[in-house]
Amino acid sequence: MRVFNFSAVRRLPLYHSVLRDYQRSGLQQISTQMLAKKANMATPVVKKDIEMTGATGKTGVGYDIVGLIGKIETFLGWDNPNDAFLVGAGRLGSALMAYEGFSRTGLNIVAAFDIDPSRIGSKVRDINILPLDKMVSLAKRMHVATGILTVPENQAQQVADLLVTAEIKRIWNFSPCVLQLPPDITLQREDLCAGLSELMLRAGVQEKQNPKPLFSVESPVVS
Amino acid sequence: MRVFNFSAVRRLPLYHSVLRDYQRSGLQQISTQMLAKKANMATPVVKKDIEMTGATGKTGVGYDIVGLIGKIETFLGWDNPNDAFLVGAGRLGSALMAYEGFSRTGLNIVAAFDIDPSRIGSKVRDINILPLDKMVSLAKRMHVATGILTVPENQAQQVADLLVTAEIKRIWNFSPCVLQLPPDITLQREDLCAGLSELMLRAGVQEKQNPKPLFSVESPVVS
Repeated sequence: MRVFNFSAVRRLPLYHSVLRDYQRSGLQQISTQMLAKKANMATPVVKKDIEMTGATGKTGVGYDIVGLIGKIETFLGWDNPNDAFLVGAGRLGSALMAYEGFSRTGLNIVAAFDIDPSRIGSKVRDINILPLDKMVSLAKRMHVATGILTVPENQAQQVADLLVTAEIKRIWNFSPCVLQLPPDITLQREDLCAGLSELMLRAGVQEKQNPKPLFSVESPVVS
Repeated sequence: MRVFNFSAVRRLPLYHSVLRDYQRSGLQQISTQMLAKKANMATPVVKKDIEMTGATGKTGVGYDIVGLIGKIETFLGWDNPNDAFLVGAGRLGSALMAYEGFSRTGLNIVAAFDIDPSRIGSKVRDINILPLDKMVSLAKRMHVATGILTVPENQAQQVADLLVTAEIKRIWNFSPCVLQLPPDITLQREDLCAGLSELMLRAGVQEKQNPKPLFSVESPVVS
């Protein structure tokens, strides 16, 4: 079995964004240095991350941009369609249903489910919001393997159990709840507080390195 | 300068959630093993992560739950209030404004800004949505140091430049755009595609370990 460095996996979408920007601007080749600079990462880290995808560059030329984009997409599984159900069509759920960034990943939210009658029957983009009690039978019939959980914390375990009943194998949990699930379910916890905490700690380190009066009156854009 | 393991930093909010659950249930002490089991992590990883916060357990007794919660909160800076402005009060911005999970982190979104007249003047929870052209002067006057960016990709760089003009030092960017910013700005990119990709790769690994005839259709993981 191959063991992945998931910190590296999480950086690949960033490189993908940079490469797409360069592709749009008409560039065909890119060096690791250029990619690293634009992504604001160290070159050896970028090099190692990209090696993981199996892409190979040419000395003095760099990577073919279209080829590297393809390698990243294949590695991340973005070139396979991935049908998902979303449960909890509140603010966060609706934001995910409308999120344009998923289009490049193959994620296809085929339906959303809720218990709130004021939401049931409406749509976000072209995704229908259906009653939760239809979820299990629909998931089994449509062979949906991915579930996105955007319900309030106190309902998350109960709805996750329902997703398991629906034979859903991968759960992407946006609630702060710590779910207990059977071992054959892959659970990804998306904790918005984690990103925030990383920002604050990195800012603390950076502000210690560059101790500037944080609220100086003169121009802040001193580089 | 202290160097942080940011993968570990990102796991601390998970432990915090587990500990709060145990605290609510009336427990006072917890072993690393118990914490690891509930968090679905390996014990040595949890032990090492917790050491980072400076917390110390007692052999055969474990950690004092209230004390450990406090250590994590102090380490992550959650015990300091952190005033932030949010720009882009669309679906994702509104979801963040309403997100209950931030209450434990000290994050306080004091105002949101938009250019859409239909949004300006309204509120999400008790947060006012104000016209974007008020942002710079208000940020300077209120000494707001954190900016949350939830605008469409094609506006992200322009709005980020405005946040820099507003003397904001930390930018939490939810757009897939790769921002170019002065080096004294701390930038955290929150890429929803990263979490999704991690889920899919981990599922690919797990489904290979437990091959079931169910729906392990695509296998994006090259092993």
